[in-house]
Amino acid sequence: MTATDRYPASSEVREVGPRDGLQSEPPIPVAERVRLVDALAATGLRAIEVGSFVHPEAVPAMAGTDEVLRAITRRPGVRYRVLVPNVRGAQLALEAGVDELEVVVSVSPTHNARNLRMSVDESVDQIAGVVALARSAGVPVEAIVATAFGCPYEGPIGPDRAWALARRLTDAGVGGCSFADTTGMAVPTSITGLLEVLAGGGLAPSEIALHLHNTRGTGLANLVVAAQHGVRRFDASIGGLGGCPFAPGATGNIPTEDTVYLLDSLGARTGVDLDALIAISLDLETLLGRTLPGQLMRSGRP
Amino acid sequence: MTATDRYPASSEVREVGPRDGLQSEPPIPVAERVRLVDALAATGLRAIEVGSFVHPEAVPAMAGTDEVLRAITRRPGVRYRVLVPNVRGAQLALEAGVDELEVVVSVSPTHNARNLRMSVDESVDQIAGVVALARSAGVPVEAIVATAFGCPYEGPIGPDRAWALARRLTDAGVGGCSFADTTGMAVPTSITGLLEVLAGGGLAPSEIALHLHNTRGTGLANLVVAAQHGVRRFDASIGGLGGCPFAPGATGNIPTEDTVYLLDSLGARTGVDLDALIAISLDLETLLGRTLPGQLMRSGRP
Repeated sequence: MTATDRYPASSEVREVGPRDGLQSEPPIPVAERVRLVDALAATGLRAIEVGSFVHPEAVPAMAGTDEVLRAITRRPGVRYRVLVPNVRGAQLALEAGVDELEVVVSVSPTHNARNLRMSVDESVDQIAGVVALARSAGVPVEAIVATAFGCPYEGPIGPDRAWALARRLTDAGVGGCSFADTTGMAVPTSITGLLEVLAGGGLAPSEIALHLHNTRGTGLANLVVAAQHGVRRFDASIGGLGGCPFAPGATGNIPTEDTVYLLDSLGARTGVDLDALIAISLDLETLLGRTLPGQLMRSGRP
Repeated sequence: MTATDRYPASSEVREVGPRDGLQSEPPIPVAERVRLVDALAATGLRAIEVGSFVHPEAVPAMAGTDEVLRAITRRPGVRYRVLVPNVRGAQLALEAGVDELEVVVSVSPTHNARNLRMSVDESVDQIAGVVALARSAGVPVEAIVATAFGCPYEGPIGPDRAWALARRLTDAGVGGCSFADTTGMAVPTSITGLLEVLAGGGLAPSEIALHLHNTRGTGLANLVVAAQHGVRRFDASIGGLGGCPFAPGATGNIPTEDTVYLLDSLGARTGVDLDALIAISLDLETLLGRTLPGQLMRSGRP
């Protein structure tokens, strides 16, 4: 149908709901987290962010991620991933059993200091330590380049700064970078701007991942433009989980089911069962007792 | 910032909230409708759909559109438009004073029969009558080509069918066509598909308008792809008003403020005051007593 627009022939949607979504909710029982991860793994999703190993006082909802990892049913072909803030967290994660580690550092020093209580240099040092440990365990590490498009404290972030940090992280040994629009400040032109700078530096769109938020309604618009440029890995959260529960209607991550629907429609096949995703989102609304921002869960597929 | 993506240098956002939005809400007083239209006209929007002249029993919320038209403060440079279902409605609208008339007909015969209780042929005949009357009054008529991308009863609609109807309408004398994704079934590839068929028939993207819904989360993704192909006129509804009030979180029209924010970010300047739009959306939430689907009204501009 489209002669002029090009999209990848396949894509990978990486589920982040059990971590980036649930971390901003009141804690739910480990058994429910296990049930959620197992249900998501049965939909055809190939990568699931199970939780994080941050300090339980800082993020109470992520306490017990080790228990979740031990209780889930590992499904062949699914990569179970966790976010770790430091070497100690990586040790715990590796002991509990993970397929991939994620680390995070912000392009914005102000955001990094507030979010991680470290300078960017300290974060990069921590990440180098995580990489060394993970390498000995044969587990890959992906770096989340946070506030890649803008920072709530510092304002817009130019693509050169995101690329400079990504290069440092690659030098530190990370296996890949995911560029995160942490507070939903990206627009299609900033997506294109970053992709062009990365490509100019030798990092092709097909090699990176994008972590998009829909805070200002632009999440899926950004995704389409990124896909036109060859990006094929996108983070998304079931039901759009991750919006601030204290601001009704405010959204965070792009919803997994809306993302799968859109990517499939572009011919960038995800291999994920859309109806199964919708059923999980509806269950999750009941569990959390609040309306989630996902659209397809309400309208159904056409 | 974008070397590879092209967007129009300017765009026109046409406000449809006072009609397409309010028509699915419980009726509000004429004075509130007047206040809304006047506030919208002060933001820099150049085209506002004030209401419709459908039968008040069919759409109670639109009763009194003639009173609204008589009470608003006409602002130079703003086109005040209304939807009319037939010649009688057009007469009433012209008597009350309008700058443009809109008529609607569905590509899908099933949808047309259910929505308008007419065959498509009967609708086209009615439209020819409206055009004749409007011409004598010197008022242009735009045709809304409804279910242009899909019909909830008939399924997907091919672009050839939308184009065939648009051609009939042009032959009947309408001054322009707006292609409506009435129930949110369009995806970027179907947008491109329609634009290519229209362009092949001699109707350039810059000549049409798009009326997009965000029912499945694809509204602004569709808009970006349309803008890449040269479309520069888009309908939108303040706050995303028009979602079904009985399905929390379900959205209808793309929100005006999110649309303005996105188009401006693409360099397709709208000339509309974003902060003023956000203030109106927040007021409207208070008036209606429900959460609207707009995003920027909650997050604020970056």
